[in-house]
Amino acid sequence: MPVHWQERLAELPDVLRSRSKPRTVILLGDLAIGGDEFVTIAGPCSVETKVQLLSTADRVSRAGARVLRGGAFKPRSSPYSFQGLGAEGLKLLALARERTGLAIVTEVMSECDVSLVAEYADILQIGSRNMENSTLLAAAACAGKPILLKRGMVATVTDLLRAAQCIVSYGNPNVMLCERGIRTFDTTTRNTFDAAAIAILKQVTHLPVICDPSHACGNRDLVPALARIGVSAGADGMIVEVHPAPEQAWSDGEQSLGFDGFESMVADLRPWIELNRSLRSKQSKAEQVEAMQ
Amino acid sequence: MPVHWQERLAELPDVLRSRSKPRTVILLGDLAIGGDEFVTIAGPCSVETKVQLLSTADRVSRAGARVLRGGAFKPRSSPYSFQGLGAEGLKLLALARERTGLAIVTEVMSECDVSLVAEYADILQIGSRNMENSTLLAAAACAGKPILLKRGMVATVTDLLRAAQCIVSYGNPNVMLCERGIRTFDTTTRNTFDAAAIAILKQVTHLPVICDPSHACGNRDLVPALARIGVSAGADGMIVEVHPAPEQAWSDGEQSLGFDGFESMVADLRPWIELNRSLRSKQSKAEQVEAMQ
Amino acid sequence: MPVHWQERLAELPDVLRSRSKPRTVILLGDLAIGGDEFVTIAGPCSVETKVQLLSTADRVSRAGARVLRGGAFKPRSSPYSFQGLGAEGLKLLALARERTGLAIVTEVMSECDVSLVAEYADILQIGSRNMENSTLLAAAACAGKPILLKRGMVATVTDLLRAAQCIVSYGNPNVMLCERGIRTFDTTTRNTFDAAAIAILKQVTHLPVICDPSHACGNRDLVPALARIGVSAGADGMIVEVHPAPEQAWSDGEQSLGFDGFESMVADLRPWIELNRSLRSKQSKAEQVEAMQ
Amino acid sequence: MPVHWQERLAELPDVLRSRSKPRTVILLGDLAIGGDEFVTIAGPCSVETKVQLLSTADRVSRAGARVLRGGAFKPRSSPYSFQGLGAEGLKLLALARERTGLAIVTEVMSECDVSLVAEYADILQIGSRNMENSTLLAAAACAGKPILLKRGMVATVTDLLRAAQCIVSYGNPNVMLCERGIRTFDTTTRNTFDAAAIAILKQVTHLPVICDPSHACGNRDLVPALARIGVSAGADGMIVEVHPAPEQAWSDGEQSLGFDGFESMVADLRPWIELNRSLRSKQSKAEQVEAMQ
Repeated sequence: MPVHWQERLAELPDVLRSRSKPRTVILLGDLAIGGDEFVTIAGPCSVETKVQLLSTADRVSRAGARVLRGGAFKPRSSPYSFQGLGAEGLKLLALARERTGLAIVTEVMSECDVSLVAEYADILQIGSRNMENSTLLAAAACAGKPILLKRGMVATVTDLLRAAQCIVSYGNPNVMLCERGIRTFDTTTRNTFDAAAIAILKQVTHLPVICDPSHACGNRDLVPALARIGVSAGADGMIVEVHPAPEQAWSDGEQSLGFDGFESMVADLRPWIELNRSLRSKQSKAEQVEAMQ
Repeated sequence: MPVHWQERLAELPDVLRSRSKPRTVILLGDLAIGGDEFVTIAGPCSVETKVQLLSTADRVSRAGARVLRGGAFKPRSSPYSFQGLGAEGLKLLALARERTGLAIVTEVMSECDVSLVAEYADILQIGSRNMENSTLLAAAACAGKPILLKRGMVATVTDLLRAAQCIVSYGNPNVMLCERGIRTFDTTTRNTFDAAAIAILKQVTHLPVICDPSHACGNRDLVPALARIGVSAGADGMIVEVHPAPEQAWSDGEQSLGFDGFESMVADLRPWIELNRSLRSKQSKAEQVEAMQ
Repeated sequence: MPVHWQERLAELPDVLRSRSKPRTVILLGDLAIGGDEFVTIAGPCSVETKVQLLSTADRVSRAGARVLRGGAFKPRSSPYSFQGLGAEGLKLLALARERTGLAIVTEVMSECDVSLVAEYADILQIGSRNMENSTLLAAAACAGKPILLKRGMVATVTDLLRAAQCIVSYGNPNVMLCERGIRTFDTTTRNTFDAAAIAILKQVTHLPVICDPSHACGNRDLVPALARIGVSAGADGMIVEVHPAPEQAWSDGEQSLGFDGFESMVADLRPWIELNRSLRSKQSKAEQVEAMQ
Repeated sequence: MPVHWQERLAELPDVLRSRSKPRTVILLGDLAIGGDEFVTIAGPCSVETKVQLLSTADRVSRAGARVLRGGAFKPRSSPYSFQGLGAEGLKLLALARERTGLAIVTEVMSECDVSLVAEYADILQIGSRNMENSTLLAAAACAGKPILLKRGMVATVTDLLRAAQCIVSYGNPNVMLCERGIRTFDTTTRNTFDAAAIAILKQVTHLPVICDPSHACGNRDLVPALARIGVSAGADGMIVEVHPAPEQAWSDGEQSLGFDGFESMVADLRPWIELNRSLRSKQSKAEQVEAMQ
């Protein structure tokens, strides 16, 4: 590890990868995040209706997803705009879990909602806009559920690790880091996908790293390529937006895959995932040999 | 106003400047923000001790400040770090108001704290990291106090106006916008002070605009120059960090002015403020003439 | 001066401001750039026709400009596009000088053109796109004329000083630095005007600093405000695009002022320039007192 | 292809991918760039000595590289700094070609050097700092050799294509585009590798796309991961810095691989390259089927 990273990481003791702590594996029933399996998280941007959610859960589950995503609380930009289904959305997510066995991840946007969301979700998502919201980080950390922590739009890799350190220091070691694109001068894509950050994170932290190809590009035609890039960079999983009818989605339709698109992407990714697994296994053996010398 | 700004502002009806609504003046007792007086807000980054706060309040008041700033709630980056004095800090701020007549502005970081903070503060500050925290914006809007809304580190001018529109749409018209520097590739200064944004905001919105030269540069040697730039850009006021002993401040000492530095800056600014007032008055008359034709 | 600037400037000995070298004044006949006079450079983006250039030269001269700008060589984006009038444009510039007494600044885009351009121009302009073109910097430095060096679109303040140091190290001490806006995530204006950079440059280097409000905002409605900001930041002069009929200009019409707009801007700026002169004189006296102690 | 890309590409007719023009294959003897083979370009940042260059050429050739890189002209930041070996360096490159059969790519920094460099090199490289130097683009285009065009540090994807269009419009269709990282707020790595840009370019242009993992990260520990990412994004080749003794390199040593590191990276990349080839072949068949319908 280069010297200047070591310096930056000095204040971040609990997230630092080391020989004695090479990786954190987060267990959720029979699901292990950060282990040998590449974990697919999929679902709609927002929970809209029972039919929408259950049909999506059904299809992504059959295609190999292990976790269902879906927003119940959305940013409230005015008293009149759609603010998510709230508690009703959480109940639909729980119903989907019951029917498919998928674990549930959903965003918590306010510390006042933490206990409610934690009652239903298996994983709490902290959104990009809240990555530096330290009161929310503290409250979410204390809810006892794994956290999916999305990188802020202009957060450096160190900023992301600092937010993770904050969560861990509140007693919650189960943090997944999520690279979802950063804001730069180039607006060809919605954000600039920082694939190198995934590779760096896998070198410096023991926490699992998830890539979000949907938000990184904002365009469904590019999602499969970005997922492939994420796998090659070493991600432990991906979170993808899927909708029964993307062009009718209430939010983020442009970047959502339809069912067929999702299925064919998952199928196409398999050999890349396999290749990444071999590479890891080779690296892991090399590290063990080195450690024994 | 250029055409493409008009388009961007179409969704922001409540913050748009027009002939019939040229400016919002926020009244707080005998203080008018957004009117003819350039308003100086000053005080320490964090409320630390009674002596620190009261001595600062006394000196900045005598030098011409009308509002006292001071953080009672700070970002909690770990369970062990300084998290602000909390309610105790709010009481000290209220005490300082009682003794000096200064109005009080302090940051609210969590919707759970809104009612507590609103009980003591005259103006609620929404920090940069929370500019897009829509649940906090909604809660703060409803507390019935004026809001000082700081621009996010990578928020565009339109993003800032959108957040202001959100607050106004919740029924609170008393919003001040604060330019405090944006994040760019250049790290010569802590942030890049976007002085043109102040000039643009004064053209497109009726809301008062405050500049924050302390956060924009992160270096006390530059604060007077940035304040001068802010005045020349047309700001209605400034918010400045002042501390009795900057090199011993618990936070942001590098960018805080000492008492003498603050006093001499305020004195030096006077002719620039005067010049800006003449310019405004001239522009205002030209607009009236144009409107009558 | 802050410690970390001193470190950065260590490799830049020839541009560093010091007590013994507080400022470089560039003399061109009776014109002194970097001295007590605020120098206005004005003219069209491109030299188009004799009538266009001479009428502009005449008007800006009468309004107080001391230098005429105008591009003779333009970026050649295809073999078919307008590439500037070339040598013909240079001759027109020389004719304008003869008739008005204005000094001439024009861009040199290629080292092969340096000697030709230097034959006609009083000041050679290095454009933003060429700020790091070290072969051009070296060739231009050796032509024996003062250089107007524009900051690159993503050049830090240190990068700009490094380019200036390069020119000076080739034996040419007469370099003016030009802040013209940087590229950031916010595209509300064409570029983000980095007014603080002007203030910093005036603290750390003895070279004159010129602001370019036209390129910084890309919109004529904002040019007067940005010029005012530049003056307040401490600039030694400004370079402004002026055209007889901006809406018919062959390039950059959107940011060009018409004659009336230019004249009224120059008139409005006068008290701000006066104020800046008083401030400088006060600072200069304070420095002398300090030096004597 | 998304609608808004089509719009942006409207002015770029000669670089646009279409059914009738799916790809440009650049032929250099028995080497085809942009065809089925993933092309490896390797060599030192600067040509330093005969031994250094020939030993590197020999090793990278045996490891599978097809093109040798090496700088003969370097940016001249002062009259005293190392400016490259110049013509002497070009002769050494030609000698290395003679002994290994590798094609030669080297940067041309000045239009005055174009004919000299073109006499020796098989491919002319336009560096990042010169991507928008239109006089150099025009001169290089006319030299009759293929061009390796590096993306500017803050050039958008469209800017890069515009520069390529400029070259093609001067009659030179043999342009390779090179993604080498962009400048952003995050300085964890030297630049931010924009892998999505590679995927986009492969969708919109018929020109070959090369990735530069060395400059993108600036750190040799990350080069293999970035090369893998580049392959997965669909690059047609890579350009990598290799030096016999990186820690003693006269420039860019931190990001140069040693011989062993280069060999093991090339070996590790093989299955990823194979996978990418299968994917392309599948996509190409699908496009043919679609075209026949």
